[in-house]
Amino acid sequence: MQLSSRVADLQASAVREMLSAAQRPGMISFAGGLPSPETFGTLTLPPAEVDVLQYGPSEGEPALREAIAQDLANLGLDCPAAQVLILSGSQQGIDLAAKLFVDAATPVAIQAPAYLAALQVFRFFGARFETLSDAQPGEGWMPGHAPSLAYVTPTFQNPTGQCWSADQRGAFAAACDRADVCLFEDDPYRDLAYDSCERRPVVADLRKASWIYQGSFSKTLAPGLRLGFLAASPDLFTHLVRLKQAADLHTNRLSQWIVLQHLLHPQRVSRLESLVSRYRQRRDDFAGLMHRYLGNGAVWAVPPGGLFFWATLPPGTDVDLLMKAAMKKGVLFTPGHHFYADRANAPPSMRLNFSHARPDQCELGLAILGDLIGQRVGAPAH
Amino acid sequence: MQLSSRVADLQASAVREMLSAAQRPGMISFAGGLPSPETFGTLTLPPAEVDVLQYGPSEGEPALREAIAQDLANLGLDCPAAQVLILSGSQQGIDLAAKLFVDAATPVAIQAPAYLAALQVFRFFGARFETLSDAQPGEGWMPGHAPSLAYVTPTFQNPTGQCWSADQRGAFAAACDRADVCLFEDDPYRDLAYDSCERRPVVADLRKASWIYQGSFSKTLAPGLRLGFLAASPDLFTHLVRLKQAADLHTNRLSQWIVLQHLLHPQRVSRLESLVSRYRQRRDDFAGLMHRYLGNGAVWAVPPGGLFFWATLPPGTDVDLLMKAAMKKGVLFTPGHHFYADRANAPPSMRLNFSHARPDQCELGLAILGDLIGQRVGAPAH
Repeated sequence: MQLSSRVADLQASAVREMLSAAQRPGMISFAGGLPSPETFGTLTLPPAEVDVLQYGPSEGEPALREAIAQDLANLGLDCPAAQVLILSGSQQGIDLAAKLFVDAATPVAIQAPAYLAALQVFRFFGARFETLSDAQPGEGWMPGHAPSLAYVTPTFQNPTGQCWSADQRGAFAAACDRADVCLFEDDPYRDLAYDSCERRPVVADLRKASWIYQGSFSKTLAPGLRLGFLAASPDLFTHLVRLKQAADLHTNRLSQWIVLQHLLHPQRVSRLESLVSRYRQRRDDFAGLMHRYLGNGAVWAVPPGGLFFWATLPPGTDVDLLMKAAMKKGVLFTPGHHFYADRANAPPSMRLNFSHARPDQCELGLAILGDLIGQRVGAPAH
Repeated sequence: MQLSSRVADLQASAVREMLSAAQRPGMISFAGGLPSPETFGTLTLPPAEVDVLQYGPSEGEPALREAIAQDLANLGLDCPAAQVLILSGSQQGIDLAAKLFVDAATPVAIQAPAYLAALQVFRFFGARFETLSDAQPGEGWMPGHAPSLAYVTPTFQNPTGQCWSADQRGAFAAACDRADVCLFEDDPYRDLAYDSCERRPVVADLRKASWIYQGSFSKTLAPGLRLGFLAASPDLFTHLVRLKQAADLHTNRLSQWIVLQHLLHPQRVSRLESLVSRYRQRRDDFAGLMHRYLGNGAVWAVPPGGLFFWATLPPGTDVDLLMKAAMKKGVLFTPGHHFYADRANAPPSMRLNFSHARPDQCELGLAILGDLIGQRVGAPAH
């Protein structure tokens, strides 16, 4: 029996093992990206006359596609409902885009660090990664020698939480246009904005280049429903629909109906404001605890949105060693090198989720981390 | 901009265009594989204490995996819940298996004809197809020269509706063992049994070879929930879970809860009996109409289960021409050549779904088809 050449990339993942450790009773986990259950919406079932049981269209329910297109128009992205595809969660959009673009050795531009599970998918299809400078993304690309695809999360990035300025957005869109690079903008955190930031979709500034833009309802409604969407330029859209059809025929129709009710709900705006204000308070509290317990051992910027703090540790720190010591004491975080295509040369860093652990757990967990760092666990010898 | 080499396979599909014609008001469609809405189960929401909103495990809900493992044990397939993976519909299992096995030019054994959307997925990943003889499947395979994967639907196959005998099942399992071929058994129709047939999973007879077995709740509960499952040998299972995680993190948890209620329902057996008896009546009525209207122009066997009649037309018939003429008169069927890897050399045939059109539509539609065939539309010149 012969498995595909890709399977070599399916090796045991330290992150996966760590996340399964997170299931142990009493563990304080800053490692995952779980929303707080307090923020979840409520479920209602569709009335009998609404058909959610039969097979549905691969593109998604027309009314939901319309509602999303209207949302996108409000963000400045003029895109008809006919270019909106409903996804079984936005992770699926990464799989479809990889299928559409990536062969062995296809150059794909990414941020460093970048979303872990996107790196995995692109790597699985054989991508050769090129690192974008966040300061001047796309600078220096030459037409004909540029990557096929650029995957970016300009707004409250996972893992860093940082957000591109209007200038960075404009410059990156112009670079994609100049070099004919397809811009794949992943935007799951945009609604979790705690400070005032430019959040206009970068794809809205393109004039020529092809694009895919995707969003999620996992952070603002409920991840268990597995519902996201993408919008794409017309040249890509039909391909993406066919890939979606081949992947799972179409997205769960009950979830589509539930998400549509959420979008059309008269209290939608106030619900979101309440969720954001709750998370802002958590972020502020977490920032205070970070300052108290990690202030001498790590460097970070308070994230203006999203679900994560990203902290850099002194050069030479063995973050895996620190992580194992923390795990023994019942605390989990995600070592930063997993978010780099070139793990071996990643600066020592850690991603800390602040949305899921209870406030008392946050304090205890950060105190334990601070202790370990203070005891120089994983620190380089002088 | 450069798309992946696979994208050449995403060309416009005649089938897809036809299925979109099926949406036109008044069309009588024998073309799709839609269950009758009368057979759909009822939905209830989980009580508040059941968590379906947070992220869940990639493998699926433990209780649902247990219930499915119990079902499989009842079929003679001894497989712990730890080897059951919940899917976003069984189409997803095909995508995961293709990712696991298929590189460019990987040999994949299939039936001829075979399930259309499986051919598409395997072709997309670069498979080279080898045709199995249904009479003596796997005969002649030599270790080291055998295909990597054999994809079969032994029970009420789509499109033919036919079911392998106990002897064919045993012989095929032995051939896979001998030649070390992974057996991928797709079994979405097994519960739709109208006549007495051997239905024991072929994978249950394997002694050495790796295997994947998958099933669906789309035919017995509701396709709109997009829920299926696979079971696999231990050497493949971990890979498949990781591929599932990369594809969409996990399956919709609300659907998983609803399907679990269906499996645990005290009236589950009587519900299924009532569904099967309803479909048996439809099949019998359709068989009578086939005999009345197509008796002189086509050849078929009455299917012992499943959702389709498969009819062979005289050699030389241009089935696409016949289909276009039928479409003009408001009737759709699926031309048989779409179910062959080698479409150009496929025998003229048609697949007719009997589960979805109303009884009066079935009569009218088959009368129209019979008329066209009687008028020798698409028939070869003498």
